[in-house]
Amino acid sequence: MKSFTDYLWFETKKRKEIVHVTPLVQDLVHRSGITEGLCLVSAMHITSSIFVNDHESGLHEDILSWVEKLAPVLPDYKHHETGEDNGDAHLKRLLCGHQVTIPVTQGSLDLGPWEQLFYGEWDGQRRKRVVVKVIGE
Amino acid sequence: MKSFTDYLWFETKKRKEIVHVTPLVQDLVHRSGITEGLCLVSAMHITSSIFVNDHESGLHEDILSWVEKLAPVLPDYKHHETGEDNGDAHLKRLLCGHQVTIPVTQGSLDLGPWEQLFYGEWDGQRRKRVVVKVIGE
Amino acid sequence: MKSFTDYLWFETKKRKEIVHVTPLVQDLVHRSGITEGLCLVSAMHITSSIFVNDHESGLHEDILSWVEKLAPVLPDYKHHETGEDNGDAHLKRLLCGHQVTIPVTQGSLDLGPWEQLFYGEWDGQRRKRVVVKVIGE
Repeated sequence: MKSFTDYLWFETKKRKEIVHVTPLVQDLVHRSGITEGLCLVSAMHITSSIFVNDHESGLHEDILSWVEKLAPVLPDYKHHETGEDNGDAHLKRLLCGHQVTIPVTQGSLDLGPWEQLFYGEWDGQRRKRVVVKVIGE
Repeated sequence: MKSFTDYLWFETKKRKEIVHVTPLVQDLVHRSGITEGLCLVSAMHITSSIFVNDHESGLHEDILSWVEKLAPVLPDYKHHETGEDNGDAHLKRLLCGHQVTIPVTQGSLDLGPWEQLFYGEWDGQRRKRVVVKVIGE
Repeated sequence: MKSFTDYLWFETKKRKEIVHVTPLVQDLVHRSGITEGLCLVSAMHITSSIFVNDHESGLHEDILSWVEKLAPVLPDYKHHETGEDNGDAHLKRLLCGHQVTIPVTQGSLDLGPWEQLFYGEWDGQRRKRVVVKVIGE
Protein backbone atom coordinates (compact mmCIF):
# COMPACT_ATOMS: atom_id res chain seq x y z
CA MET A 1 0.00 0.00 0.00
CA LYS A 2 1.20 3.48 -0.86
CA SER A 3 0.17 6.71 0.81
CA PHE A 4 0.62 10.33 -0.19
CA THR A 5 -0.08 13.47 1.84
CA ASP A 6 -0.05 17.10 0.78
CA TYR A 7 -1.71 20.36 1.73
CA LEU A 8 -3.38 23.08 -0.31
CA TRP A 9 -3.50 26.69 0.91
CA PHE A 10 -6.24 29.18 0.16
CA GLU A 11 -6.61 32.88 0.86
CA THR A 12 -9.83 34.22 -0.63
CA LYS A 13 -10.39 37.88 -1.46
CA LYS A 14 -13.95 37.82 -0.15
CA ARG A 15 -15.17 36.64 3.23
CA LYS A 16 -17.43 34.04 1.57
CA GLU A 17 -16.32 32.39 -1.63
CA ILE A 18 -16.58 29.14 -3.55
CA VAL A 19 -13.31 28.02 -5.22
CA HIS A 20 -13.02 25.28 -7.86
CA VAL A 21 -10.27 22.85 -6.82
CA THR A 22 -10.68 19.73 -9.00
CA PRO A 23 -7.53 20.33 -11.11
CA LEU A 24 -5.39 20.97 -8.00
CA VAL A 25 -6.51 17.70 -6.43
CA GLN A 26 -6.23 15.73 -9.68
CA ASP A 27 -2.67 16.99 -9.99
CA LEU A 28 -1.80 15.71 -6.50
CA VAL A 29 -3.32 12.31 -7.37
CA HIS A 30 -1.09 12.12 -10.45
CA ARG A 31 1.93 13.07 -8.36
CA SER A 32 1.07 10.38 -5.79
CA GLY A 33 1.59 7.64 -8.37
CA ILE A 34 -1.47 5.86 -6.93
CA THR A 35 -3.80 4.46 -9.59
CA GLU A 36 -6.37 2.56 -7.48
CA GLY A 37 -7.47 3.83 -4.07
CA LEU A 38 -9.18 6.60 -2.17
CA CYS A 39 -8.43 10.34 -2.07
CA LEU A 40 -9.58 12.22 1.02
CA VAL A 41 -9.89 16.02 0.73
CA SER A 42 -10.62 17.72 4.05
CA ALA A 43 -10.79 21.37 5.16
CA MET A 44 -8.50 21.79 8.18
CA HIS A 45 -10.05 25.07 9.34
CA ILE A 46 -13.35 24.87 11.13
CA THR A 47 -15.02 27.65 9.17
CA SER A 48 -14.68 26.20 5.66
CA SER A 49 -16.10 23.32 3.62
CA ILE A 50 -15.22 20.87 0.89
CA PHE A 51 -18.06 19.65 -1.31
CA VAL A 52 -18.80 18.16 -4.73
CA ASN A 53 -21.45 19.80 -6.87
CA ASP A 54 -21.97 21.61 -10.17
CA HIS A 55 -19.42 24.01 -11.69
CA GLU A 56 -22.00 26.68 -12.50
CA SER A 57 -21.78 30.26 -11.24
CA GLY A 58 -25.54 30.72 -10.85
CA LEU A 59 -25.74 27.68 -8.60
CA HIS A 60 -22.83 29.00 -6.57
CA GLU A 61 -24.78 32.20 -5.94
CA ASP A 62 -27.73 30.04 -4.89
CA ILE A 63 -25.51 28.12 -2.48
CA LEU A 64 -24.14 31.33 -0.96
CA SER A 65 -27.71 32.65 -0.45
CA TRP A 66 -28.92 29.32 0.91
CA VAL A 67 -26.19 28.90 3.55
CA GLU A 68 -26.89 32.47 4.62
CA LYS A 69 -30.58 31.66 5.07
CA LEU A 70 -30.00 28.45 7.05
CA ALA A 71 -26.92 29.52 9.02
CA PRO A 72 -27.13 33.31 9.06
CA VAL A 73 -24.64 35.93 10.21
CA LEU A 74 -26.07 37.00 13.59
CA PRO A 75 -24.64 39.16 16.37
CA ASP A 76 -25.76 37.00 19.27
CA TYR A 77 -24.11 33.61 18.89
CA LYS A 78 -22.75 32.40 22.26
CA HIS A 79 -19.47 31.72 20.44
CA HIS A 80 -19.04 35.49 20.09
CA GLU A 81 -18.58 35.86 23.85
CA THR A 82 -15.03 34.59 23.21
CA GLY A 83 -14.37 37.64 21.02
CA GLU A 84 -14.99 35.78 17.73
CA ASP A 85 -17.54 37.03 15.18
CA ASN A 86 -17.79 33.94 12.97
CA GLY A 87 -20.39 31.70 14.64
CA ASP A 88 -22.29 31.52 11.34
CA ALA A 89 -19.19 30.18 9.53
CA HIS A 90 -18.88 27.24 11.97
CA LEU A 91 -22.53 26.33 11.29
CA LYS A 92 -22.10 26.71 7.51
CA ARG A 93 -19.27 24.15 7.66
CA LEU A 94 -21.56 21.77 9.54
CA LEU A 95 -24.35 22.33 7.01
CA CYS A 96 -22.27 21.75 3.86
CA GLY A 97 -19.76 19.27 5.25
CA HIS A 98 -16.00 19.67 5.50
CA GLN A 99 -14.63 16.72 3.53
CA VAL A 100 -15.16 14.34 0.67
CA THR A 101 -13.54 11.06 -0.33
CA ILE A 102 -13.10 10.51 -4.05
CA PRO A 103 -12.39 7.10 -5.59
CA VAL A 104 -9.16 6.95 -7.60
CA THR A 105 -9.68 4.61 -10.56
CA GLN A 106 -7.12 4.03 -13.31
CA GLY A 107 -5.09 6.97 -12.01
CA SER A 108 -7.85 9.58 -12.07
CA LEU A 109 -10.52 10.99 -9.77
CA ASP A 110 -13.56 8.82 -10.48
CA LEU A 111 -16.15 11.62 -10.64
CA GLY A 112 -19.51 11.74 -12.41
CA PRO A 113 -19.80 13.80 -15.61
CA TRP A 114 -20.85 17.01 -13.81
CA GLU A 115 -19.19 16.40 -10.46
CA GLN A 116 -16.56 18.98 -9.56
CA LEU A 117 -14.81 19.59 -6.28
CA PHE A 118 -15.10 22.91 -4.42
CA TYR A 119 -13.60 24.67 -1.44
CA GLY A 120 -16.28 26.64 0.38
CA GLU A 121 -14.86 29.55 2.35
CA TRP A 122 -17.19 30.98 5.02
CA ASP A 123 -14.73 33.25 6.87
CA GLY A 124 -11.90 34.05 4.52
CA GLN A 125 -9.40 36.77 3.71
CA ARG A 126 -6.71 34.81 5.57
CA ARG A 127 -4.55 31.75 4.79
CA LYS A 128 -6.32 28.45 5.37
CA ARG A 129 -5.34 24.87 4.68
CA VAL A 130 -6.85 21.71 3.16
CA VAL A 131 -5.31 18.25 3.56
CA VAL A 132 -5.25 15.82 0.62
CA LYS A 133 -4.44 12.21 1.52
CA VAL A 134 -4.35 9.46 -1.08
CA ILE A 135 -3.99 5.79 -0.15
CA GLY A 136 -3.94 2.83 -2.50
CA GLU A 137 -1.52 1.22 -4.88
CA MET B 1 -3.99 -4.26 -0.89
CA LYS B 2 -6.95 -5.14 -3.09
CA SER B 3 -9.38 -2.72 -4.67
CA PHE B 4 -12.76 -3.24 -6.31
CA THR B 5 -14.86 -0.75 -8.27
CA ASP B 6 -18.39 -1.08 -9.56
CA TYR B 7 -21.33 1.17 -10.38
CA LEU B 8 -25.03 0.96 -9.53
CA TRP B 9 -27.67 2.53 -11.78
CA PHE B 10 -30.99 3.95 -10.64
CA GLU B 11 -34.00 5.28 -12.49
CA THR B 12 -36.77 6.22 -10.08
CA LYS B 13 -40.43 6.47 -11.05
CA LYS B 14 -40.97 9.62 -9.02
CA ARG B 15 -38.97 12.82 -9.11
CA LYS B 16 -38.12 12.47 -5.42
CA GLU B 17 -37.65 9.04 -3.93
CA ILE B 18 -35.69 7.19 -1.25
CA VAL B 19 -34.37 3.77 -2.34
CA HIS B 20 -32.99 1.10 0.00
CA VAL B 21 -29.62 -0.10 -1.31
CA THR B 22 -27.95 -2.04 1.54
CA PRO B 23 -28.31 -5.50 -0.11
CA LEU B 24 -26.93 -4.22 -3.45
CA VAL B 25 -23.85 -2.80 -1.75
CA GLN B 26 -23.39 -5.82 0.53
CA ASP B 27 -23.46 -8.02 -2.57
CA LEU B 28 -20.69 -5.98 -4.21
CA VAL B 29 -18.59 -6.26 -1.03
CA HIS B 30 -18.96 -10.05 -1.15
CA ARG B 31 -17.99 -10.07 -4.80
CA SER B 32 -14.91 -7.92 -4.06
CA GLY B 33 -13.44 -10.68 -1.88
CA ILE B 34 -12.29 -7.97 0.55
CA THR B 35 -12.88 -8.89 4.20
CA GLU B 36 -11.21 -5.98 6.03
CA GLY B 37 -11.28 -2.46 4.63
CA LEU B 38 -13.44 0.49 3.66
CA CYS B 39 -16.37 0.68 1.24
CA LEU B 40 -17.12 4.09 -0.28
CA VAL B 41 -20.59 4.61 -1.77
CA SER B 42 -20.95 7.92 -3.61
CA ALA B 43 -23.69 9.43 -5.80
CA MET B 44 -22.12 10.52 -9.11
CA HIS B 45 -24.95 12.84 -10.10
CA ILE B 46 -25.10 16.20 -8.40
CA THR B 47 -28.80 16.05 -7.60
CA SER B 48 -28.86 12.87 -5.52
CA SER B 49 -27.66 11.69 -2.11
CA ILE B 50 -26.39 8.64 -0.30
CA PHE B 51 -27.12 8.42 3.43
CA VAL B 52 -27.43 5.94 6.29
CA ASN B 53 -30.55 6.10 8.43
CA ASP B 54 -33.61 4.07 9.46
CA HIS B 55 -35.46 1.71 7.12
CA GLU B 56 -38.90 3.03 8.10
CA SER B 57 -41.38 4.42 5.60
CA GLY B 58 -42.83 7.06 7.94
CA LEU B 59 -39.37 8.48 8.55
CA HIS B 60 -38.75 8.53 4.81
CA GLU B 61 -41.87 10.68 4.39
CA ASP B 62 -40.54 12.94 7.13
CA ILE B 63 -37.19 13.22 5.33
CA LEU B 64 -38.92 14.11 2.03
CA SER B 65 -40.97 16.84 3.78
CA TRP B 66 -37.94 18.10 5.67
CA VAL B 67 -35.66 18.50 2.64
CA GLU B 68 -38.52 20.31 0.91
CA LYS B 69 -38.80 22.74 3.83
CA LEU B 70 -35.06 23.48 4.04
CA ALA B 71 -34.21 23.35 0.31
CA PRO B 72 -37.53 24.07 -1.41
CA VAL B 73 -38.52 23.89 -5.04
CA LEU B 74 -38.52 27.57 -6.08
CA PRO B 75 -38.82 29.23 -9.48
CA ASP B 76 -36.16 31.86 -8.93
CA TYR B 77 -32.86 30.07 -8.34
CA LYS B 78 -30.04 31.71 -10.31
CA HIS B 79 -29.17 28.22 -11.55
CA HIS B 80 -32.42 28.26 -13.54
CA GLU B 81 -31.07 31.01 -15.82
CA THR B 82 -29.13 28.18 -17.52
CA GLY B 83 -32.43 26.53 -18.48
CA GLU B 84 -32.35 24.04 -15.60
CA ASP B 85 -35.23 23.73 -13.13
CA ASN B 86 -33.56 21.67 -10.39
CA GLY B 87 -31.78 24.20 -8.17
CA ASP B 88 -33.53 22.71 -5.15
CA ALA B 89 -32.14 19.23 -5.93
CA HIS B 90 -28.53 20.51 -5.86
CA LEU B 91 -29.18 22.03 -2.42
CA LYS B 92 -30.88 18.85 -1.15
CA ARG B 93 -27.74 16.89 -2.06
CA LEU B 94 -25.65 19.39 -0.09
CA LEU B 95 -28.04 19.15 2.88
CA CYS B 96 -28.16 15.33 3.10
CA GLY B 97 -24.66 14.55 1.81
CA HIS B 98 -23.74 12.56 -1.26
CA GLN B 99 -21.57 9.75 0.08
CA VAL B 100 -20.83 7.45 2.98
CA THR B 101 -17.91 5.21 3.84
CA ILE B 102 -18.80 1.94 5.53
CA PRO B 103 -16.27 -0.22 7.38
CA VAL B 104 -15.92 -3.75 6.01
CA THR B 105 -15.26 -6.13 8.92
CA GLN B 106 -15.05 -9.93 8.58
CA GLY B 107 -16.43 -9.66 5.03
CA SER B 108 -19.55 -7.66 5.83
CA LEU B 109 -20.69 -4.05 6.03
CA ASP B 110 -20.07 -3.11 9.67
CA LEU B 111 -23.36 -1.27 10.28
CA GLY B 112 -25.24 -0.64 13.53
CA PRO B 113 -28.40 -2.68 14.23
CA TRP B 114 -30.74 -0.16 12.60
CA GLU B 115 -28.35 1.40 10.10
CA GLN B 116 -29.40 0.92 6.49
CA LEU B 117 -28.03 2.55 3.36
CA PHE B 118 -30.23 4.70 1.09
CA TYR B 119 -30.05 6.40 -2.26
CA GLY B 120 -31.88 9.73 -2.10
CA GLU B 121 -33.14 10.88 -5.49
CA TRP B 122 -34.03 14.59 -5.70
CA ASP B 123 -34.44 14.92 -9.48
CA GLY B 124 -35.20 11.51 -10.88
CA GLN B 125 -37.06 9.78 -13.67
CA ARG B 126 -33.78 9.32 -15.55
CA ARG B 127 -30.79 6.98 -15.28
CA LYS B 128 -28.28 7.99 -12.64
CA ARG B 129 -25.17 6.32 -11.29
CA VAL B 130 -23.54 5.55 -7.93
CA VAL B 131 -19.93 4.43 -7.55
CA VAL B 132 -19.00 1.72 -5.04
CA LYS B 133 -15.28 1.40 -4.29
CA VAL B 134 -13.92 -1.12 -1.79
CA ILE B 135 -10.29 -1.14 -0.71
CA GLY B 136 -8.68 -3.47 1.79
CA GLU B 137 -7.50 -7.02 1.91
CA MET C 1 -1.95 -3.23 4.54
CA LYS C 2 -3.02 -3.32 8.18
CA SER C 3 -6.50 -2.77 9.53
CA PHE C 4 -7.79 -2.12 13.03
CA THR C 5 -11.38 -2.03 14.29
CA ASP C 6 -12.73 -0.99 17.65
CA TYR C 7 -15.93 0.46 19.10
CA LEU C 8 -16.55 3.30 21.53
CA TRP C 9 -19.66 3.33 23.76
CA PHE C 10 -21.45 6.45 24.98
CA GLU C 11 -24.30 6.98 27.41
CA THR C 12 -25.01 10.67 27.86
CA LYS C 13 -26.77 12.12 30.90
CA LYS C 14 -28.83 14.52 28.80
CA ARG C 15 -30.99 13.73 25.80
CA LYS C 16 -28.92 16.08 23.62
CA GLU C 17 -25.22 16.46 24.27
CA ILE C 18 -21.94 17.13 22.50
CA VAL C 19 -19.03 14.97 23.71
CA HIS C 20 -15.35 15.60 22.91
CA VAL C 21 -13.79 12.36 21.61
CA THR C 22 -10.46 13.32 20.00
CA PRO C 23 -8.27 11.72 22.72
CA LEU C 24 -10.27 8.46 22.65
CA VAL C 25 -9.83 8.17 18.88
CA GLN C 26 -6.16 9.22 18.97
CA ASP C 27 -5.56 6.50 21.55
CA LEU C 28 -7.10 3.86 19.25
CA VAL C 29 -4.92 5.08 16.36
CA HIS C 30 -1.82 4.63 18.55
CA ARG C 31 -2.97 1.16 19.54
CA SER C 32 -3.53 0.25 15.87
CA GLY C 33 0.18 0.66 15.12
CA ILE C 34 -0.80 2.31 11.82
CA THR C 35 1.25 5.38 11.00
CA GLU C 36 0.02 6.28 7.49
CA GLY C 37 -3.59 5.74 6.46
CA LEU C 38 -7.19 6.71 7.08
CA CYS C 39 -9.25 6.58 10.28
CA LEU C 40 -13.03 6.34 9.86
CA VAL C 41 -15.17 7.32 12.86
CA SER C 42 -18.86 6.58 12.37
CA ALA C 43 -21.92 6.72 14.66
CA MET C 44 -23.68 3.33 14.50
CA HIS C 45 -26.98 4.61 15.92
CA ILE C 46 -29.21 6.53 13.60
CA THR C 47 -29.94 9.35 16.03
CA SER C 48 -26.40 10.55 16.65
CA SER C 49 -23.62 12.33 14.76
CA ILE C 50 -19.87 12.55 14.47
CA PHE C 51 -18.41 15.88 13.38
CA VAL C 52 -15.23 17.96 13.51
CA ASN C 53 -15.48 21.53 14.73
CA ASP C 54 -14.29 23.86 17.50
CA HIS C 55 -13.79 22.77 21.11
CA GLU C 56 -15.61 25.79 22.54
CA SER C 57 -18.60 25.51 24.86
CA GLY C 58 -20.37 28.64 23.54
CA LEU C 59 -20.26 27.26 20.01
CA HIS C 60 -21.62 23.94 21.27
CA GLU C 61 -24.62 25.80 22.72
CA ASP C 62 -25.03 27.51 19.35
CA ILE C 63 -24.95 24.12 17.59
CA LEU C 64 -27.57 22.68 19.97
CA SER C 65 -29.87 25.70 19.33
CA TRP C 66 -29.26 25.57 15.58
CA VAL C 67 -30.09 21.88 15.13
CA GLU C 68 -33.25 22.50 17.17
CA LYS C 69 -34.24 25.33 14.83
CA LEU C 70 -33.60 23.38 11.59
CA ALA C 71 -34.72 19.92 12.76
CA PRO C 72 -37.09 20.66 15.64
CA VAL C 73 -38.71 18.36 18.18
CA LEU C 74 -42.29 18.08 16.86
CA PRO C 75 -45.18 15.83 17.86
CA ASP C 76 -46.39 15.06 14.34
CA TYR C 77 -43.56 13.29 12.52
CA LYS C 78 -44.88 10.30 10.55
CA HIS C 79 -42.10 8.28 12.20
CA HIS C 80 -43.96 8.66 15.50
CA GLU C 81 -46.81 6.46 14.22
CA THR C 82 -44.45 3.54 14.97
CA GLY C 83 -44.46 4.50 18.65
CA GLU C 84 -41.13 6.36 18.45
CA ASP C 85 -40.79 9.98 19.58
CA ASN C 86 -37.39 10.83 18.08
CA GLY C 87 -38.10 11.90 14.49
CA ASP C 88 -36.16 15.11 15.12
CA ALA C 89 -33.06 13.13 16.16
CA HIS C 90 -32.99 11.23 12.83
CA LEU C 91 -33.09 14.56 10.97
CA LYS C 92 -30.41 16.10 13.19
CA ARG C 93 -28.10 13.19 12.26
CA LEU C 94 -28.78 13.89 8.59
CA LEU C 95 -28.13 17.61 9.08
CA CYS C 96 -24.81 17.29 10.93
CA GLY C 97 -23.54 14.07 9.33
CA HIS C 98 -22.79 10.79 11.06
CA GLN C 99 -19.15 10.12 10.21
CA VAL C 100 -15.77 11.62 9.44
CA THR C 101 -12.58 10.23 7.98
CA ILE C 102 -9.37 11.59 9.46
CA PRO C 103 -5.98 11.20 7.78
CA VAL C 104 -3.39 9.41 9.90
CA THR C 105 0.03 10.95 9.22
CA GLN C 106 3.22 9.99 11.07
CA GLY C 107 1.15 8.05 13.59
CA SER C 108 -1.24 10.85 14.56
CA LEU C 109 -4.63 12.22 13.54
CA ASP C 110 -3.76 14.87 10.93
CA LEU C 111 -6.15 17.59 12.17
CA GLY C 112 -5.97 21.36 11.73
CA PRO C 113 -4.93 23.49 14.72
CA TRP C 114 -8.51 23.97 15.99
CA GLU C 115 -10.10 20.82 14.63
CA GLN C 116 -11.47 18.52 17.32
CA LEU C 117 -13.70 15.49 16.96
CA PHE C 118 -17.14 15.34 18.59
CA TYR C 119 -19.90 12.85 19.19
CA GLY C 120 -23.28 14.58 18.84
CA GLU C 121 -26.02 12.82 20.76
CA TRP C 122 -29.57 13.74 19.71
CA ASP C 123 -31.51 11.05 21.62
CA GLY C 124 -29.36 9.89 24.48
CA GLN C 125 -29.61 8.56 28.02
CA ARG C 126 -28.94 5.05 26.70
CA ARG C 127 -25.86 3.12 25.52
CA LYS C 128 -24.87 3.85 21.92
CA ARG C 129 -21.93 2.80 19.84
CA VAL C 130 -19.39 4.36 17.44
CA VAL C 131 -17.13 2.33 15.16
CA VAL C 132 -13.51 3.36 14.63
CA LYS C 133 -11.76 1.67 11.69
CA VAL C 134 -8.16 2.46 10.76
CA ILE C 135 -6.54 1.13 7.59
CA GLY C 136 -3.04 1.79 6.35
CA GLU C 137 0.45 0.64 7.15
